[in-house]
Amino acid sequence: MNIKNNKIVLKKRPVGFPKLDDFEIVNETINNINYGEVLIKVIWLSLDPYMRGRMSEAKSYADPVKIGDVITGGAVGEVIESKCPNFIKGDIVEGFTLGWQEFAKINSSLVRKIEPSLAPIQTAVGVLGMPGMTAYFGLFEICRPVPGDNLVVSAASGAVGQLVGQLAKIAGCNVTGIAGSDEKCKYLKDILKFDNVINYKKDNVFKKIKEYCPSGVNVYFDNVGGKISDDVISNIAPFGRIGVCGVISQYNLTQMETGMRVQRAVLTNQASVEGFLVFRFEQKYSIARKRMAYWLSNRSLIWKEDIVTGLEKAPEAFIGLMNGKNFGKLLIKLDN
Amino acid sequence: MNIKNNKIVLKKRPVGFPKLDDFEIVNETINNINYGEVLIKVIWLSLDPYMRGRMSEAKSYADPVKIGDVITGGAVGEVIESKCPNFIKGDIVEGFTLGWQEFAKINSSLVRKIEPSLAPIQTAVGVLGMPGMTAYFGLFEICRPVPGDNLVVSAASGAVGQLVGQLAKIAGCNVTGIAGSDEKCKYLKDILKFDNVINYKKDNVFKKIKEYCPSGVNVYFDNVGGKISDDVISNIAPFGRIGVCGVISQYNLTQMETGMRVQRAVLTNQASVEGFLVFRFEQKYSIARKRMAYWLSNRSLIWKEDIVTGLEKAPEAFIGLMNGKNFGKLLIKLDN
Repeated sequence: MNIKNNKIVLKKRPVGFPKLDDFEIVNETINNINYGEVLIKVIWLSLDPYMRGRMSEAKSYADPVKIGDVITGGAVGEVIESKCPNFIKGDIVEGFTLGWQEFAKINSSLVRKIEPSLAPIQTAVGVLGMPGMTAYFGLFEICRPVPGDNLVVSAASGAVGQLVGQLAKIAGCNVTGIAGSDEKCKYLKDILKFDNVINYKKDNVFKKIKEYCPSGVNVYFDNVGGKISDDVISNIAPFGRIGVCGVISQYNLTQMETGMRVQRAVLTNQASVEGFLVFRFEQKYSIARKRMAYWLSNRSLIWKEDIVTGLEKAPEAFIGLMNGKNFGKLLIKLDN
Repeated sequence: MNIKNNKIVLKKRPVGFPKLDDFEIVNETINNINYGEVLIKVIWLSLDPYMRGRMSEAKSYADPVKIGDVITGGAVGEVIESKCPNFIKGDIVEGFTLGWQEFAKINSSLVRKIEPSLAPIQTAVGVLGMPGMTAYFGLFEICRPVPGDNLVVSAASGAVGQLVGQLAKIAGCNVTGIAGSDEKCKYLKDILKFDNVINYKKDNVFKKIKEYCPSGVNVYFDNVGGKISDDVISNIAPFGRIGVCGVISQYNLTQMETGMRVQRAVLTNQASVEGFLVFRFEQKYSIARKRMAYWLSNRSLIWKEDIVTGLEKAPEAFIGLMNGKNFGKLLIKLDN
């Protein structure tokens, strides 16, 4: 075996928003795999906001990527060699740590086989993968929507947000989505049938929420943190539930931004705020996947992808993701 | 009947910290009570931080006191006349809205009879009343402590805080109390047997919490909000629970204070924040009251009161409460 592998590594730790020269393409040769490993030809990369955290040294729930190491992240690929009895050549697999590279030599315990007949294989890192599970469990287990609830979701056209809003419609909620362009808002309203949309770059979020949720916000699915969230939480309803899924407005700050403390709103409304990481629901993924696949098949769920081609485009696309340039789930299709 | 009643009314709405001339003593004559009413000679007034909210016009969970109206608040007194079959002269009663006055003419549905043989009657607005219920249900239902948890409570020598810490000890927690003087801290440690104490006026709260809770804060019972809470929440443990009971640091602000948003700490630690008002647990009060009375009787719970004598002292004592001058549950004993 003599596989030439191109991979994108972390050249230096980004300060604030990542820049192109924080990354570097390097190549290596993969000569063999060990017992228990598989060699995977990567086909799709999943670019997700949480990955920004891995590029920093700050303490978080996972260890940071080391300087010089491949950028870790979810991906889908094809097994081209296997030294594990559970996988054979040709299997399509998904792994959360395959990373930004053309080939991944990895312990087989870190990948799972997926069924290509079920849905396009890249949905294994999308609607049927981590973002889909995040939307499903964050909504149903953390936010616990009740039919008739006013639900607000931020980053509403992103990978998670688009699903949260649609799942909340299935659950009988009145859904308000917050996004960053008229085009995104139009899509949410016309295609995904959200009840209300707010373009946070143009509208007064506080006033619009008050207008769309006159009895208050029963559920806020928070993907962004920051000022947008202050404005939503200021309108929280009695016994409202706030699920904190992400804080993309904060990932690229070089120092902590102060803002509204939640305590007063939470106290007077007996509301709750809960942060979650999707992994805690792992034992229930198979239940959620079946339902999501069913809803996809009957068009109760629509899934929008934003596809960029070429491994070398990953850093630029990721920087765009940090700035809200993507429209739908951001994927890199490898063309090797 | 010709009862001369002195009462303290709201003369004007306090701006920032209340001042003596925001209040005024007025007198009136009570000539008769109506069917369904009782006339109560007030013996004990309960002064509680939440009452500051009632003096403001800002929207909250209860209506504000009107200018010229008696300051409402919990009190204990003796029935001196009854036009309700459920009460007779001599009954000792407690009511949440009796207010700052010598006599209260009130619908009997707004008071409850208490059993003087059980404990000193003023405990009906203390350890066996609203503050006791707040500590019990806030701790056990909202914060759900597990033996071995690191628990932090702010305003730890106050009416609620002193009980939270002791109940948490009964529940097997490692308890850290935050208070505002060395005298209070010494009491918490030596008499109430808290494991650790922090004098927030002298100590670096963030560093002390890190020192006392090296594995993080599993439970934070928050009575204060503000900077102290930022420092505690910055040390929250994975799956930590923050119960928001009060925000005394914020009650007297004339404009919103910015501070640390909780989202990031809550997300990366999968922690939760929940506000609560004790009334939601009303149907379970009798269970809690029996247990608290038992723990009092066997000295598992110690209950400290700070007693001021004379109705006319209520405004000054209340202003002291807003500044943390009280040491234990603040009560006014009427001397009429």
